[in-house]
Amino acid sequence: MPSATDVSLPADPPTATGDLLVDYADVAAARARLDGVVRRTPVMTSRTVDQEVQAEVFFKCENFQRTGAFKIRGGYNALSQLPPDQKERGVLTYSSGNHAQAIALSGRLLGVPATIIMPENAPAVKLEATRGYGATIITYDPATTTREELAQEVSTERGLPIIPPYDHPDVVAGQGTVADELFDEVGALDVLLVCCGGGGLLSGCAIAAKHHAPDCTVIGVEPARADDATRSFHSGELHTVHNPDTIADGARTPYLGKVTFPLVYEYADDMVTVSEEALRAAMFFLWERMKIVVEPTGALAAAALLDGVVPGDHRRIGAVISGGNVDLKRAAALFQDA
Amino acid sequence: MPSATDVSLPADPPTATGDLLVDYADVAAARARLDGVVRRTPVMTSRTVDQEVQAEVFFKCENFQRTGAFKIRGGYNALSQLPPDQKERGVLTYSSGNHAQAIALSGRLLGVPATIIMPENAPAVKLEATRGYGATIITYDPATTTREELAQEVSTERGLPIIPPYDHPDVVAGQGTVADELFDEVGALDVLLVCCGGGGLLSGCAIAAKHHAPDCTVIGVEPARADDATRSFHSGELHTVHNPDTIADGARTPYLGKVTFPLVYEYADDMVTVSEEALRAAMFFLWERMKIVVEPTGALAAAALLDGVVPGDHRRIGAVISGGNVDLKRAAALFQDA
Repeated sequence: MPSATDVSLPADPPTATGDLLVDYADVAAARARLDGVVRRTPVMTSRTVDQEVQAEVFFKCENFQRTGAFKIRGGYNALSQLPPDQKERGVLTYSSGNHAQAIALSGRLLGVPATIIMPENAPAVKLEATRGYGATIITYDPATTTREELAQEVSTERGLPIIPPYDHPDVVAGQGTVADELFDEVGALDVLLVCCGGGGLLSGCAIAAKHHAPDCTVIGVEPARADDATRSFHSGELHTVHNPDTIADGARTPYLGKVTFPLVYEYADDMVTVSEEALRAAMFFLWERMKIVVEPTGALAAAALLDGVVPGDHRRIGAVISGGNVDLKRAAALFQDA
Repeated sequence: MPSATDVSLPADPPTATGDLLVDYADVAAARARLDGVVRRTPVMTSRTVDQEVQAEVFFKCENFQRTGAFKIRGGYNALSQLPPDQKERGVLTYSSGNHAQAIALSGRLLGVPATIIMPENAPAVKLEATRGYGATIITYDPATTTREELAQEVSTERGLPIIPPYDHPDVVAGQGTVADELFDEVGALDVLLVCCGGGGLLSGCAIAAKHHAPDCTVIGVEPARADDATRSFHSGELHTVHNPDTIADGARTPYLGKVTFPLVYEYADDMVTVSEEALRAAMFFLWERMKIVVEPTGALAAAALLDGVVPGDHRRIGAVISGGNVDLKRAAALFQDA
């Protein structure tokens, strides 16, 4: 299988030392805005996991979130703060899936018309769910088209503001409420593991973690085949990937953003990668032993732990399960080798 | 596909009007025994389900129970009350799967050696898990052998008492703690839906339901292809099935028992059946929309609701999700037509 190739850097590339545009007060404000709108998702534990990795593990299960993933938190937080005229005109976004549903549902809840640019190879369940929430969908071929550029064109043409899937302060603040709830429920943690695509969830959760438990080690987890953020984090310079061949479709984002790169660089303590095999095995484990449906991206944090990339060491470890939107018929094929 | 054929009645058949050997005090005592041993499983709700069926639905999720199903409740309750010499000698049981794991784990927790008679076509995940708990397994061909008879032979030969999967007062009382916890958590319900194989879970839950909410309508749910309990309930006379061809492997039991038939007849208000298609669709729905892994038998109660066999009618409805032990590779095949 082909591995990811680098894309050329964007014209005005994000830097590690850009402005820090989100702080804990933003996360706290988002939490208040989301109260009664998003679900306070359960924290699950498993004796089997604890024995297997020799740690006390707390899974924050955003697969049980409305729309099946954490993205509704950032999407709703952003849309709810738009001025009235923009709410009336509507918004535009691009997404490999979960952010699409988040904006579609947030739009419906807030009366904001939503137009979504989605890759034509997105899981069918995500395309259907997004349409089901009443959004207008535009599809594109990810092998030949850059979604950011297409979004710019459509935005200009139709006069719609773009709510990007991660590189926006309100989106980051919304995603941070995942960790905020987790710490409220289980207290201090030694380690927090968060999957990383464009860094919205990771940076938001890192900000919340450092507020609740300054000594908590926050670790971002990427697929080895889409390790742009890991390389960017370790080098301090932006690295990119182009259409990487990983089952973790939520982590196929080409690079960290202007908002997220400085935040990840400042607040995360480390970044690690997991193999496709480890990811598939973790996903299988979560389904079979914990009885929860988790999408590949949603199993990244657990994979780092179950595969031993991050050792348990008898610590209290939080791991975010980011979503559960997976085409069940496709998942079956993944499990044939697990 | 062949439908179920009746087996001849057992020599000394259970009757609807036999003694009522379990009451709520037994359920309450079981609850105390199980405290700290079994998991108090979560009650899940879904806006999607509520809208779809026009009711307020509470799913009691025993798929998250230790061993992946409710059976540990009855198994542990029974084993923990054995006299010391029997505990030392060990126990024998027969099971299509979940009761096997329940007895295996209970045996390990209580230091009681367990021997389990299992059908050779039981899901691989159940065979493996049972072995993993340290039990000795004897397999048989369900097409040619009656497990009850084989168990009698082995019991006599090895001097081991049989802990049957449902027809035992301590087992019934243990299973009743499922509904006991549900009512404690959500208060009174208008309807409680419980799947029915041999009637252990149904009768235990019905006893608890009538204690907490005397007006609650308790409805047992069977596959249409294994409708022995439904026919027995409606006629007051024992009906049987032989090796019925249903995906709900936990409901392939041939008939209600001496303990469970009178209890189901007394405490349940109705029994209904669902088609294989409705069952498959409900299972798919629970996985895809609620993100929980549910085995076919575990989806029976939900299927009655989602298929409209039991109307929502804006009522408060409890539905027991009895387990989540399913071979993921086999489940995939089921979903191809869903």
